[in-house]
Amino acid sequence: MRSNTMITSRNDVTEMIIAAKVSKGLKWEDVAAKVGLSKEWVTAACLGQMALSAEQAATVAEIFGLDEEAAKWLQEVPYKGCLPTAVPTDPLIYRLYEVISVYGTTMKALIHEEFGDGIMSAIDFSMDIQREADPKGDRVNIVMSGKFLPYKSY
Amino acid sequence: MRSNTMITSRNDVTEMIIAAKVSKGLKWEDVAAKVGLSKEWVTAACLGQMALSAEQAATVAEIFGLDEEAAKWLQEVPYKGCLPTAVPTDPLIYRLYEVISVYGTTMKALIHEEFGDGIMSAIDFSMDIQREADPKGDRVNIVMSGKFLPYKSY
Amino acid sequence: MRSNTMITSRNDVTEMIIAAKVSKGLKWEDVAAKVGLSKEWVTAACLGQMALSAEQAATVAEIFGLDEEAAKWLQEVPYKGCLPTAVPTDPLIYRLYEVISVYGTTMKALIHEEFGDGIMSAIDFSMDIQREADPKGDRVNIVMSGKFLPYKSY
Amino acid sequence: MRSNTMITSRNDVTEMIIAAKVSKGLKWEDVAAKVGLSKEWVTAACLGQMALSAEQAATVAEIFGLDEEAAKWLQEVPYKGCLPTAVPTDPLIYRLYEVISVYGTTMKALIHEEFGDGIMSAIDFSMDIQREADPKGDRVNIVMSGKFLPYKSY
Amino acid sequence: MRSNTMITSRNDVTEMIIAAKVSKGLKWEDVAAKVGLSKEWVTAACLGQMALSAEQAATVAEIFGLDEEAAKWLQEVPYKGCLPTAVPTDPLIYRLYEVISVYGTTMKALIHEEFGDGIMSAIDFSMDIQREADPKGDRVNIVMSGKFLPYKSY
Amino acid sequence: MRSNTMITSRNDVTEMIIAAKVSKGLKWEDVAAKVGLSKEWVTAACLGQMALSAEQAATVAEIFGLDEEAAKWLQEVPYKGCLPTAVPTDPLIYRLYEVISVYGTTMKALIHEEFGDGIMSAIDFSMDIQREADPKGDRVNIVMSGKFLPYKSY
Amino acid sequence: MRSNTMITSRNDVTEMIIAAKVSKGLKWEDVAAKVGLSKEWVTAACLGQMALSAEQAATVAEIFGLDEEAAKWLQEVPYKGCLPTAVPTDPLIYRLYEVISVYGTTMKALIHEEFGDGIMSAIDFSMDIQREADPKGDRVNIVMSGKFLPYKSY
Amino acid sequence: MRSNTMITSRNDVTEMIIAAKVSKGLKWEDVAAKVGLSKEWVTAACLGQMALSAEQAATVAEIFGLDEEAAKWLQEVPYKGCLPTAVPTDPLIYRLYEVISVYGTTMKALIHEEFGDGIMSAIDFSMDIQREADPKGDRVNIVMSGKFLPYKSY
Amino acid sequence: MRSNTMITSRNDVTEMIIAAKVSKGLKWEDVAAKVGLSKEWVTAACLGQMALSAEQAATVAEIFGLDEEAAKWLQEVPYKGCLPTAVPTDPLIYRLYEVISVYGTTMKALIHEEFGDGIMSAIDFSMDIQREADPKGDRVNIVMSGKFLPYKSY
Amino acid sequence: MRSNTMITSRNDVTEMIIAAKVSKGLKWEDVAAKVGLSKEWVTAACLGQMALSAEQAATVAEIFGLDEEAAKWLQEVPYKGCLPTAVPTDPLIYRLYEVISVYGTTMKALIHEEFGDGIMSAIDFSMDIQREADPKGDRVNIVMSGKFLPYKSY
Repeated sequence: MRSNTMITSRNDVTEMIIAAKVSKGLKWEDVAAKVGLSKEWVTAACLGQMALSAEQAATVAEIFGLDEEAAKWLQEVPYKGCLPTAVPTDPLIYRLYEVISVYGTTMKALIHEEFGDGIMSAIDFSMDIQREADPKGDRVNIVMSGKFLPYKSY
Repeated sequence: MRSNTMITSRNDVTEMIIAAKVSKGLKWEDVAAKVGLSKEWVTAACLGQMALSAEQAATVAEIFGLDEEAAKWLQEVPYKGCLPTAVPTDPLIYRLYEVISVYGTTMKALIHEEFGDGIMSAIDFSMDIQREADPKGDRVNIVMSGKFLPYKSY
Repeated sequence: MRSNTMITSRNDVTEMIIAAKVSKGLKWEDVAAKVGLSKEWVTAACLGQMALSAEQAATVAEIFGLDEEAAKWLQEVPYKGCLPTAVPTDPLIYRLYEVISVYGTTMKALIHEEFGDGIMSAIDFSMDIQREADPKGDRVNIVMSGKFLPYKSY
Repeated sequence: MRSNTMITSRNDVTEMIIAAKVSKGLKWEDVAAKVGLSKEWVTAACLGQMALSAEQAATVAEIFGLDEEAAKWLQEVPYKGCLPTAVPTDPLIYRLYEVISVYGTTMKALIHEEFGDGIMSAIDFSMDIQREADPKGDRVNIVMSGKFLPYKSY
Repeated sequence: MRSNTMITSRNDVTEMIIAAKVSKGLKWEDVAAKVGLSKEWVTAACLGQMALSAEQAATVAEIFGLDEEAAKWLQEVPYKGCLPTAVPTDPLIYRLYEVISVYGTTMKALIHEEFGDGIMSAIDFSMDIQREADPKGDRVNIVMSGKFLPYKSY
Repeated sequence: MRSNTMITSRNDVTEMIIAAKVSKGLKWEDVAAKVGLSKEWVTAACLGQMALSAEQAATVAEIFGLDEEAAKWLQEVPYKGCLPTAVPTDPLIYRLYEVISVYGTTMKALIHEEFGDGIMSAIDFSMDIQREADPKGDRVNIVMSGKFLPYKSY
Repeated sequence: MRSNTMITSRNDVTEMIIAAKVSKGLKWEDVAAKVGLSKEWVTAACLGQMALSAEQAATVAEIFGLDEEAAKWLQEVPYKGCLPTAVPTDPLIYRLYEVISVYGTTMKALIHEEFGDGIMSAIDFSMDIQREADPKGDRVNIVMSGKFLPYKSY
Repeated sequence: MRSNTMITSRNDVTEMIIAAKVSKGLKWEDVAAKVGLSKEWVTAACLGQMALSAEQAATVAEIFGLDEEAAKWLQEVPYKGCLPTAVPTDPLIYRLYEVISVYGTTMKALIHEEFGDGIMSAIDFSMDIQREADPKGDRVNIVMSGKFLPYKSY
Repeated sequence: MRSNTMITSRNDVTEMIIAAKVSKGLKWEDVAAKVGLSKEWVTAACLGQMALSAEQAATVAEIFGLDEEAAKWLQEVPYKGCLPTAVPTDPLIYRLYEVISVYGTTMKALIHEEFGDGIMSAIDFSMDIQREADPKGDRVNIVMSGKFLPYKSY
Repeated sequence: MRSNTMITSRNDVTEMIIAAKVSKGLKWEDVAAKVGLSKEWVTAACLGQMALSAEQAATVAEIFGLDEEAAKWLQEVPYKGCLPTAVPTDPLIYRLYEVISVYGTTMKALIHEEFGDGIMSAIDFSMDIQREADPKGDRVNIVMSGKFLPYKSY
């Protein structure tokens, strides 16, 4: 709930965007199409996790009816992390956390077996979420692709 | 570090498996091939996250040189969750946690936009981890597939 | 405590509903009857845990005297989880938590004994709460019914 | 993993029981039948959450091959609580926790609407877990029955 | 610090009561006398931990100068728990916590020795706080009386 | 579970006492009678929360069959605090915690109203636990008496 | 940041005092001199940790330009504890915490060796902070004096 | 409880020292006198918080009957911090924590008023604990002296 | 989000500075140049972690368009610590935390090997952050320099 | 403290290395020289944070007198993270944590100002710790160098 006073954090702009989205009945997919990038990146950016270029910010500001001040804030690098608690309570997000809880050491073991010591980057990273039609019930398909970054001795 | 006394938890068997794997220089991929299932599921099972059938347990016990008592424990449903802390400290596993921290609300928004209210199942779920060749540096490719389960009013 | 400014989260609407309920002296059972669904689902929806259809939202908005903007928010999928702390402090809710704390491994053992490895779904799930007359003091009767979802090897 | 030394906590006996159960291939339902009580209570008692009478302890000791010292420990009131973390990581047990997280305020609201201020007892309490056949997939049915205890002014 | 807008939680009313008490210089003992109940119950109710009857709420509203809306809220069952942290920082309240920390297992052992397995109810419960004159320095005397509720096998 | 090696903490002695108590079927009340002090203090001391005098330690060592080394440890001031988690999981002990959670600010308000700023000492403190016969079900009666210690300006 | 509405907690008054101190450029030492007590006690009182007498409150209110309502709040016993996290982040305050972390068991051992079992009171307590001139760099000198309170058997 | 195997941490040596102290009935003050340093520093060192010189280690090893391996470990810099939980449960140590909780911002304010921005060092630091005779009950006197370290702009 | 009311904490001023920086499109490097100090110290000061001199505060106030009241607050020593959670969620800041998590004991071991027991001061400390050109991708270069402070026996 | 039984984790090997280092009086710098790499990487590897090549493991095993089994474990990728608590208690390591706590947002702001959105890698990372001679007291100099990894839209 906000009144029309000074914006003091990126979170203020995220709230404005979400409120405008509900009010105008917009879809993330359409927003992404207008910005000309993937729905995954654009949604994350609108939800306050990515910095936008001036041009992207102008487009987003127009879509959601934001003023110039808000558009400037969209170009700021935000303090990232979108969850209110370390273990998420929302069931959809918790299932993703549970996958890490149950498969974490497995993912670690298999990636090390294939690549050696190192990590999958979460920065040089992209994600694609799709519906996978299935007669037994459609499935959510999430593809994560991150550059392997090896530890090296020095 | 363990001495040869009574097994009192599935975790004891997991430690035996890991010690045998190091000692014998085995690979998860080869273990999986002998069991005849994906490397993701078999590794998770060996790391104490899945219950094995009698036949699978016998195969795994033979590979790692476990006795009959241990093979029985492999058929028990374990208390799942493989991480020592709620926020994982290991860099490889942390990056997966960070993806949820940064993209959690995005994944939630896009799945709801496509499917409505509900979740991606973490039970009717499979995962595939592959090397993705890339001239700028090979990538880790993780595909998660989970059945969409809708909330329904009643 | 809120002033009449922009709604920026589903929680704002939940507060409006609760305030209107107190002010008008409404009962959840009557709200549910007007919506035409169970009191369990309708109450959870009004308390910000479920997304409503357009029609349901219109009915709820009328009952509680909400404007159109609020009715739109009711159709948004909320970030779920209604408790302010991981271990609830409220005595009624704590007793439910205590049941899991004391009987958690028992419920796990018996469900696995009957069904094998898997879970009781919390999504394909319904609940019914009734008064159970008893000469030694009436009882609360809670029936939970959730689809069993098996883990499968792959 | 334990060697044959002095028992110093109820938990030692619980570990002996679980190890014997795996080794002998026993079922909780059969254990309960021999004790002559519900499978829910007997399993909870064997898993270290309830105190047994001398007679019950003797029966349980015989079933699992425990010595007299262990049988004495079964009659001690245990320090209750069977979960290693405040938010359980095991998927089956987590779903029960999630039900409280999502429906907690709903259950509170409906029980208060029906009974006034008070709680459902977790002591004068019983539970029944059954398979509910369903053509769309069998369901887990959990019935909880607890005496309503009202707060009274004084 | 509050402005005169809509009440959205019981906590708003608690704040109004505390502010009025300071402003008018009232004493809990006198409030309790007017309500006609113990100072322990009445104070807890005014501090947002108990639900009041319509008549009690009217009396309390009159004493503190609350409007009708606030009086309605006093009749709502509050979400209980009055401490901002799990381990209280306030020295007076911490000493009570310390008593449980130091004597908790003792109280458990002695109550079980006298009554068998079960608990002292915190619902069918009353408390009395008195000054105990003592030449070496007066003492605080707290008497807690709670019904013993036995666990029973079923 | 312990083998006969060097004692390195008071907790080792507490475990020996508890194991001996179960094995010999002793009662705290009888132990206290032999020591010649209240059952509350003696139990707390045996459970590792109080330091014993040489004479008391000798009596306790004889009752539980402890050697001289253990008797010396009983005279050491222990690191106090007997609960494994900040919020206790055991239902009996949790109810005491809940009393503080629900009545904490009330106890604070009433003690300050009677005595001014200060605390009830948890050191110059005694406790008495008794059965209170009641036709509607016997009650647990806990009397706490602690010296009031005032804050003074300086 | 506050507007001129009703005071609802002692913390509101603390904020007013701090803001006035910055604005008027006052020093704690001078405030203490006007109140006629030590700078340690007066500062703690102004920072919301101690209750003031009517006379002290009037003096403080005059110094900081507070109204009568605020002066009444200064006489209320506050909910004590001035740190936002259990482990303080501020470097000056953390060093004090570190002293306890590193020397805690040492202080315990030496006080018990000198006095027997018991504590140093934090209520019948005073503190004096002085500059200690030193050619190698001046030192902060903190003297804490608390009455020893012995545990006694009963 | 330890058997005679390889030492793998400084904590093993601390346990040996404490066990020997209890067994031999030594006093920290006498240990310090033999080492020729303050009782505060020597006790902290013996309790595993300080590194000893070769000579100091030899003296301490002789006093407590430690072998050469243990004496080597005494010269290792330990991982410091002697408390099992962030908020200490032991009443004596908690009172010290409470002093910081209640007076933390006061100490910060007064040190900054006297010295400007900076801290009291916890490294260039010494402590002296003495009995302060007092007809109303003897007092514990703790003097802390730490070099003031100023923040400087750069 | 703030309205033009009284400043009650240094954090209010930090928010004003950040909002002005976004609005005016300023760069920290330029701010530092005007203040005449390093960009590291000046940014930390503007972000609420350092106290400014009167002259520095005047310069900063002019740059960001702050009033005199705000300039006074800039000269106050702030309660330091700029992260909302103990483990930072922001990926850039987390990487720094991870370095400590992975290399913490290494840094400790090497500094002790070189200097003996003691610490690197975080007060008599400076930091320099530079771009390090690299054909394989530019690097961030962080140089930390802190005075070594030895523990000494006393 | 360990006996000669099966190795079940990398941590067992780390304990062997540390015990051998103390016993033989080795220096990390010399170990690193024999391995032919930096002291920072080699120490981290020996302390269980890096995987060694077969050749490196053989060298390390020889230096510390480890058997072949231990040498195999050195080649395993460890579960990384070397601190027992999220906020480190050891003063040397805490100072590093404090730098992040105080300067975290500053480092974030300056790196983004120079490089745009992205992070400093903690994988493609090296560190150099040196003594910096200084007449006012020698300083610890830590140089961290990590590749900048930019976030990119996709």
